[in-house]
Amino acid sequence: QTVESDERALLNVDEGIRFSKDSLFQMNLRFRMQNRAGFNSIYDGENLGVEQFEMRVRRLRLRFDGYVLSPKFQYYIQLAFSKADLDLETGDIAQPVRDAILYYTINKNLYLGFGQSKLPGNRERVISSGNLQFADRSIANSLFTLDRDFGLFGYYTLRTRSQSIFLLKGAISSGDGRNASAVNNGLSYTGRIEALPFGVFRNSGDYSEGDLEFEPLPKLSVGITLSENQKAIRTGGQLGAELFQARTLNSLIVDAMFKYQGWALMSEYMSRSTKDPITTNEVGDVRFVIVGKGVNTHVSRMIGPKSELALRYAFVVPDKSIDMYLERVDESLIGFTHYLNGHRIKIQANLGYRWLEGLYQIENSGNSWTGMFQVEFGI
Amino acid sequence: QTVESDERALLNVDEGIRFSKDSLFQMNLRFRMQNRAGFNSIYDGENLGVEQFEMRVRRLRLRFDGYVLSPKFQYYIQLAFSKADLDLETGDIAQPVRDAILYYTINKNLYLGFGQSKLPGNRERVISSGNLQFADRSIANSLFTLDRDFGLFGYYTLRTRSQSIFLLKGAISSGDGRNASAVNNGLSYTGRIEALPFGVFRNSGDYSEGDLEFEPLPKLSVGITLSENQKAIRTGGQLGAELFQARTLNSLIVDAMFKYQGWALMSEYMSRSTKDPITTNEVGDVRFVIVGKGVNTHVSRMIGPKSELALRYAFVVPDKSIDMYLERVDESLIGFTHYLNGHRIKIQANLGYRWLEGLYQIENSGNSWTGMFQVEFGI
Amino acid sequence: QTVESDERALLNVDEGIRFSKDSLFQMNLRFRMQNRAGFNSIYDGENLGVEQFEMRVRRLRLRFDGYVLSPKFQYYIQLAFSKADLDLETGDIAQPVRDAILYYTINKNLYLGFGQSKLPGNRERVISSGNLQFADRSIANSLFTLDRDFGLFGYYTLRTRSQSIFLLKGAISSGDGRNASAVNNGLSYTGRIEALPFGVFRNSGDYSEGDLEFEPLPKLSVGITLSENQKAIRTGGQLGAELFQARTLNSLIVDAMFKYQGWALMSEYMSRSTKDPITTNEVGDVRFVIVGKGVNTHVSRMIGPKSELALRYAFVVPDKSIDMYLERVDESLIGFTHYLNGHRIKIQANLGYRWLEGLYQIENSGNSWTGMFQVEFGI
Repeated sequence: QTVESDERALLNVDEGIRFSKDSLFQMNLRFRMQNRAGFNSIYDGENLGVEQFEMRVRRLRLRFDGYVLSPKFQYYIQLAFSKADLDLETGDIAQPVRDAILYYTINKNLYLGFGQSKLPGNRERVISSGNLQFADRSIANSLFTLDRDFGLFGYYTLRTRSQSIFLLKGAISSGDGRNASAVNNGLSYTGRIEALPFGVFRNSGDYSEGDLEFEPLPKLSVGITLSENQKAIRTGGQLGAELFQARTLNSLIVDAMFKYQGWALMSEYMSRSTKDPITTNEVGDVRFVIVGKGVNTHVSRMIGPKSELALRYAFVVPDKSIDMYLERVDESLIGFTHYLNGHRIKIQANLGYRWLEGLYQIENSGNSWTGMFQVEFGI
Repeated sequence: QTVESDERALLNVDEGIRFSKDSLFQMNLRFRMQNRAGFNSIYDGENLGVEQFEMRVRRLRLRFDGYVLSPKFQYYIQLAFSKADLDLETGDIAQPVRDAILYYTINKNLYLGFGQSKLPGNRERVISSGNLQFADRSIANSLFTLDRDFGLFGYYTLRTRSQSIFLLKGAISSGDGRNASAVNNGLSYTGRIEALPFGVFRNSGDYSEGDLEFEPLPKLSVGITLSENQKAIRTGGQLGAELFQARTLNSLIVDAMFKYQGWALMSEYMSRSTKDPITTNEVGDVRFVIVGKGVNTHVSRMIGPKSELALRYAFVVPDKSIDMYLERVDESLIGFTHYLNGHRIKIQANLGYRWLEGLYQIENSGNSWTGMFQVEFGI
Repeated sequence: QTVESDERALLNVDEGIRFSKDSLFQMNLRFRMQNRAGFNSIYDGENLGVEQFEMRVRRLRLRFDGYVLSPKFQYYIQLAFSKADLDLETGDIAQPVRDAILYYTINKNLYLGFGQSKLPGNRERVISSGNLQFADRSIANSLFTLDRDFGLFGYYTLRTRSQSIFLLKGAISSGDGRNASAVNNGLSYTGRIEALPFGVFRNSGDYSEGDLEFEPLPKLSVGITLSENQKAIRTGGQLGAELFQARTLNSLIVDAMFKYQGWALMSEYMSRSTKDPITTNEVGDVRFVIVGKGVNTHVSRMIGPKSELALRYAFVVPDKSIDMYLERVDESLIGFTHYLNGHRIKIQANLGYRWLEGLYQIENSGNSWTGMFQVEFGI
C-alpha cells in the first residue's frame, strides 16, 4: 500500500481506480471518509457531565491524481464535501476545493507546482489527514499551521554520496489561504529544508504517522521552515477571521520524525510573530493576529502487527501582547488504532484531557475531557 | 433492473459503472437528475392565475456503492448538487453530503451501519427519491418525517418457518439531522418493525412506489416506528429552523405497502408530540415544534406495461397547541408516469390541488392548483 | 481532439474516460482546471503600483456526457467547484450545477433539450470556457450576456443544396438564471439564427476561439439573437443582483466568427433595453437593469503550429437612463497562448489596459493595467 503524499501526485497505487492510456494519460480516482462519534465533557465549576455528543462525517473526500500528455505533466485534485471540510463549521463560504495543482517534473530531483496545495510547513499538517494516528490534528496545528495556499511551489531533492538526503522546498503564494479572492499586493514566502541523515523512510514514512512499516534501522527526518506572509489579512495568515488591518507575519517551524522497529516519535515547534498584533475598527472592535508558540509531540508504538498505542502532549502559549484575549491551552491524548488496511481503513479510539491556563486540576472551570471513536474508510 | 435501497449498499446493478477487483474491492458509480417544469396557481381572492413557474433541476446526485477489503465492509455515499438538494432553498449552509455510511455485515440476517443515512422512519421517506411515483413527497412527509441523521444503525431480518418475514430496524443518532455540528448531549432513539406476512416483494418492491413488477400474488408490508429525540433543537427534530430552547420529541409512525397485479396501495400515518412545543427568545419571538399528525395515501395502477396512473390524498393537522401558527392543509394529486427504463428513466406529469383549513372550495384564499412535468434520468 | 460544445453532449472524444455498453449506455468523464496568477494595477491619482495579486483556481469542472438506453437520449452534466465557479465571489449561494440537461434527438437535423444549459446567446458565452483564447471573457459579455437558464431548448440544422448551412436555435426558459427558485410567472424567450455561407468549420471551429485548425478556405459564421425576458427580477436578467421590481428585458445580439489559414476574427454586438430600468424600494435604495450596449472584437493569428497571438478590444456603454450609476468602460488586451494539447492544455499570458469614461490617458483615476498568467489543464 503506497502512502499518499500531499506534495506530489500519487501515480502508483494498488487501491483506487486507475484509468490509463500508455504514457499519454493516467487518472487515479480515490475517495475516503471519516465517520465519528464522541463526546466533550466540560467542567462547569460544579459538575463534570457529557456536555456534547459529536456525531458526524468529519471528512469526505474525492481525490484525482494522474498525468496528461506525458508523465512530466502531473495533476492532483482533491475535493471535500463534509460540512467541516467545506469550512462551514467556522465560515459561511463553501470551499470544496482543497487541492488543485499541476506539477511539472524537470528531472528526478526537481519538480515545480502551480496551483493550490499545502505549503511546506509543519509536518503534522503536510501529513495527509488520511495518515493521522489521532482523530484530529493538535491544538498547536490549529493555531499556528501555515495550511494551504495558492502559488508557485518548488521541490528539490539533494542526494549526497552517503545515504543522507536533503529536501529543499519553497513556495511563493498569495498568503490568503484556500480559494482566496484578490485582496492586496502582499505575497507569502515559505522555505523549508529537511534532513534525513539515515536515508529515506520505508514507504514515505516521514510523512505518515505511526511506524506501520517497522523500520528495521533507525530513521530520522528533521525539518525547519521559515515563512514571511506580507500584508496578511487573516488572524492566522492563511486561516482565520479577517483582520481589520493587514499585517506581515513571520513564522518559524522546527519539526522531526523518528521511527524504529514499531516506535515512532514526532515533534514540532511552531511560532508566529508580527509587529503590533492587535487590529481595531472605528467602533473599537478588536481582532488580533494569533502570535505566540505551540508544541506538539507524539510517541507511538505498534503493539501488534496492525495495532498501535499512541500518546500526544501539545500546548499553545499566546504571546503576551494578546494574552488578555487568548489563554494557554494544554492537551494530552491517548489513542488506540487498529489498522485493518493500513491507514486506508482503520478504527481509532481517543481519550483526551484539555486544560486552560496551565491549571491541570479537574476543578478548574473550562477544563474538559473528550472521547472519540472514528472509522476511516477509503481506497 | 435492481431497485436501489437507501438502507443498504447497492452491490448488484446492471446499470451504472462498476469497478471491481475480485472480492477485494468494488465500486458502483451512478448519477441521476430530475429536471422539471411546472406552475403554481394560487387563488388570491379574486383571480386564479398562474402565480409562479417552477423550472429547475430539482435533484442531481452522484452515488457510490461498494465494498473494500471484503464484501463484509460496505459503503454507501451519496452527494447532492442542486440548489434544493444542498438545502439552499430553505437554509444557507450548503450540504452536499446526503449519505455517507459504512455497513458491517455480521451474518445474512444482521448488519450494522455507522454514519449518516436515513432513519428507519416513514416509508415514503425511506423510499429513494429515485423510486417515487409523484414528483415530490407529500406534505405529511414534509412536516413529520424523521429524515436523515448520523449515528449507529442496526438491521435484522427475522425469518419464520412460513413465508412471513419480520424486519427489525433501530438507530441511535445525534437527532440533529444531516451534517449537524455538536450542540448538546441529547441523542435520538428510533425503533421500527416491519411485517411482511406474505413474504418478500419482487425486486424490493416494498421500498419502491408503483407495482412495476405486477406481483402475481398479493404482497403486504406493515411498519411501525417509534422515535424519541431528546433535547432536539430544530422545529422538526432532524429538520427545520432552530428552536430557542431544546425539546424532547416523540414520534409514532404507522405505514403499509400493498401490491398486487399492477395495483399498489401505500399509506402512512405520522404524529409528533412534545411537552410545551412553543419556544421563545428574550424579545418574544416564537419558534415552535411542529406537533400534530399527518396522513398520506397513494393508490396506483399500471395502465400498460410501462405506464401508470396514481392518486394521492394527504393532509396534515397541527396540534391545537400550535394552531394559531400553522393551519391544516389537504392535498390531492393525480399522476401519470411513463417508465422508459423502470424508475431510472421516467416521465411524470402531476396535477394537484391544495386547500387550507379544510375549506376545499376554490374561492378560499390561499387554495392552489399545481401542475408539474418532470423527467428523471439516471443510471 | 474534438472541440467540446456547450450545446450538445460530447459523445466522441479521444481524451477523457469513456464507459460504454454497446448502444445501451455511454458516459464520458472529464475534468479541467484553470490556475492563474496575475496582478491589477490601478491608477489612484498619484501612483501606478500593483494594487492586487490575483492568484487562484479560477475554474475547476467535472463534466459527464453520454447517453442511456439509446443514443437518442443524451445527457450533459457539468459541475463546478472553484469559488468563482460556485458564484461565491459575488453571491452567497453555492451553485455547483452549471449544466444539467437531457437531449432528445428527433432526427439528424433536429434535437431538443430539457434542463439547464447555456441560452443561444452571444458567441463568446456559448464558446466553452475551455476554448477561450484570453483568460477571461470580455467586459461586454459580463454586462450583457444571456448566460445560462433552465427550460426547453430546440436546435435545428437547415441544410441547403450548396455548402451553406443555417442553424436555428430557440429556448423557452425561466429567465432567472442558474438554479433559480420559482419566483413569478414570467418566462424568457430566445431565438437565434446562424448562417454559415461557406459551410461548416473544421472541428466545430465556429465555437472555438483561435484558428488552431488553419482553415484552408475562408469560413464564416454570422449569428443574430433576439430575446425577451418577461418579468425578470435580476439586473441582467439571468445574472446579477435582485431588482426591487420585475422588468421585461429585450436583448439584441449580433456576432460573427471568421477563420482562414491561422487567422481568426470574432466580433459581437450586444444590447439590452427595458422600460424604466430604475427600481427602488420604500427607503429609496436604487437597483437598475443594466441597459445599454457592448461590443467585443478579437483578432488572432497562429504564429507557429501551436502558438498564437491575439488582440481584444471591447467596450460597454450604459444607456443614458442609468449613466449616473454606471460608466463607460473600454478594455484592450494582448494575449499569447501556447497550445500544448489544443485547448485542453494551454499556457496563456495576457496584458491589458482598461479605462473609464472614454479617458484612455493613464492619469485618469481608476484606469488600470492587468497582467495574467494562466494554465489550463484538462482531459
